[in-house]
Amino acid sequence: MNIEFAERMNHVQKSFIREILKITENPDVISFAGGLPNPDSFPIKAIQQASEKVLADYGSSVLQYSSTEGYLPLREYIAERYYQRFGLSVEADEILITSGSQQALDLIGKILLNKGDQVVLERPGYLGAIQAFSIFEPEFQSVALNDDGIDLNQLADTLKVHNPKLFYTLPNFHNPSGVTYSAENREKIAERLKQHQTILIEDDPYSELRFIGEDLPPIKKFLGDQSIMLGSFSKIVAPAMRLGWICAQGELMEKLIIAKQAADLHTNYYSQRIVHQFLTDNDLENHIEKIRQMYKQKRESMVAMIEKYFPKEIKSTQPEGGMFLWVTLPEGMSSLELFDLAAKENVAFVPGDPFYVNGENVNTLRLNYTNSSEAMIEEGIKRLAKVIKQMLNHVR
Amino acid sequence: MNIEFAERMNHVQKSFIREILKITENPDVISFAGGLPNPDSFPIKAIQQASEKVLADYGSSVLQYSSTEGYLPLREYIAERYYQRFGLSVEADEILITSGSQQALDLIGKILLNKGDQVVLERPGYLGAIQAFSIFEPEFQSVALNDDGIDLNQLADTLKVHNPKLFYTLPNFHNPSGVTYSAENREKIAERLKQHQTILIEDDPYSELRFIGEDLPPIKKFLGDQSIMLGSFSKIVAPAMRLGWICAQGELMEKLIIAKQAADLHTNYYSQRIVHQFLTDNDLENHIEKIRQMYKQKRESMVAMIEKYFPKEIKSTQPEGGMFLWVTLPEGMSSLELFDLAAKENVAFVPGDPFYVNGENVNTLRLNYTNSSEAMIEEGIKRLAKVIKQMLNHVR
Repeated sequence: MNIEFAERMNHVQKSFIREILKITENPDVISFAGGLPNPDSFPIKAIQQASEKVLADYGSSVLQYSSTEGYLPLREYIAERYYQRFGLSVEADEILITSGSQQALDLIGKILLNKGDQVVLERPGYLGAIQAFSIFEPEFQSVALNDDGIDLNQLADTLKVHNPKLFYTLPNFHNPSGVTYSAENREKIAERLKQHQTILIEDDPYSELRFIGEDLPPIKKFLGDQSIMLGSFSKIVAPAMRLGWICAQGELMEKLIIAKQAADLHTNYYSQRIVHQFLTDNDLENHIEKIRQMYKQKRESMVAMIEKYFPKEIKSTQPEGGMFLWVTLPEGMSSLELFDLAAKENVAFVPGDPFYVNGENVNTLRLNYTNSSEAMIEEGIKRLAKVIKQMLNHVR
Repeated sequence: MNIEFAERMNHVQKSFIREILKITENPDVISFAGGLPNPDSFPIKAIQQASEKVLADYGSSVLQYSSTEGYLPLREYIAERYYQRFGLSVEADEILITSGSQQALDLIGKILLNKGDQVVLERPGYLGAIQAFSIFEPEFQSVALNDDGIDLNQLADTLKVHNPKLFYTLPNFHNPSGVTYSAENREKIAERLKQHQTILIEDDPYSELRFIGEDLPPIKKFLGDQSIMLGSFSKIVAPAMRLGWICAQGELMEKLIIAKQAADLHTNYYSQRIVHQFLTDNDLENHIEKIRQMYKQKRESMVAMIEKYFPKEIKSTQPEGGMFLWVTLPEGMSSLELFDLAAKENVAFVPGDPFYVNGENVNTLRLNYTNSSEAMIEEGIKRLAKVIKQMLNHVR
């Protein structure tokens, strides 16, 4: 049979990272490639208690079909936490529970993007967003990321020239670069966007994982309804639950609910109830603080090992939170080539290439530090340093 | 702000049924409107045990990110059950776990439908499929359902004239009509389709709920890779879990996995593990047999009450399984009008209208019998009979 697939499928590739993860299945490989939270951070016992309790106390009602919008007390909790953390006033009706924040990207693309619409991404940009939006056949524009956030001049030009429908950002502990947008950068982005009809997508899976410095306000604080915020329980409770959310207003929320219903009726309700029970019976702040301490130590260890073993020509970011740091090799050196050599030394990372919508053979790469022990971090960075030095000598 | 939504959103409406369900929130209303399994059928204790066990035995691994395709032993279980029930040889690699079978419809539409592509539906057709496919802007053709399945002559004509990309069917205890396709009808559909490039979508959420007669082979048995089958644990375990699957081969499966990854990375893994543990530790056959007995009694009660109270002009189907029966009022009588009158008598159902892609003001309606007690069935049918008689007298 000759199957004619939809044209939109020509625009999306199988995740490069998934292919890399196959290499990392070899137990001898030390992997800085994945984006996995550390399993030691999962509250196993508390989840077990919550699972038991919701069934004991609420019986079959937690196993039945439920509303598309999601469990109201969970949405109230999320709205209330936005107020506590940022003084952001959000109603529960402005929260839609999604099957992870990846689904949020799919729903947003679905309701907003016509073929050829302009979408602005950061350069480098989050791979999951590139994948999700690609299906709806937009044209991507990318704007450089600096150490303190987006390049504002480039952003202003891009907004003027391309009149984009969406601008997708990940302002806290950016994936892949680890960059955090400064407070000033956030305010200026809002100022620029207010002069256009561009909707901001403010993806925020990591901001609770800040181990240095203080929380910064979301851009939504300055931009109001023109920003859609995304959140997730994957990094602070457990990713297997696939629980994320969208915070949006008015007609945007109406259309999102329609799209959500057509996509999967509603998000797993048993898990919504379990996570809500977990949040009710446990001190979330205390739980997150433990994760922060764990990740801080790992990040410090990786930064120290890079300092110790890497040649001085190699630059890397020093994230204030989150899960990744970003390495820049000398100009002209290919991280894809480095990847192949590193694989032979049993160490893996993600080459920068898939994070650029047009880039090829870039000299950047992403390292994850959350899912390795300190001993593995030292050994892995040592191996990587060895390969980098080989390549440098070869280039010279 | 003036938001320009994607054109595809002009084609999909908020579910009519959801609007109806709001009326049924009034506790005085007897509702035959929803499509809910009976909560007494949910294996609460066994789910509780399974939830506890997977965490106790497998720890944090059941809370981590997992593979897009789904948990391999669960996919093996599903493949093995196809073989046991129908002698259908399917590999685990040909099963993709989805967030309910509603998501299967979204993914299939996404990978196959270009704007204007032809999609064949049954008349009446399943509302969830109409909603999911609508987003991808196809043109719908509908083919009449007879008592023994699809109208084969109409199907042949439609295939010839429109060269459709998809033909979506629900051959067992059809939603909304309760019709089951005969074995002969299934074979003939396969014969017809083999002469075309049309892919069959064989949706099968209900076939395990057969309480009269014997299992019939899926059309895939005669049609092979040209059929995509959909299944679900919603009606035999619990809908809150949002666990369904797609059975497809070759390039279709490859594209579905890419679309699934972009849509939500993977289905809730904790729930996949819980349901697999439940299936391992319990006798599923025994569990399903209890549901069948429960639904058989309710179906018999509703058929008997219709016989007792409804005027003889009213026709209704007598399903051999599943959750619904289908009522046809005399020609010219509007089920929407009946709905409004019935609401005043505190009884609800789903008027036929949303099940027709073009139909307006039809004389058919859907009744659900699985989620009411026998006393409620008697009282509800009595109230409905009263209103029908009023309308009939008015017409005369």
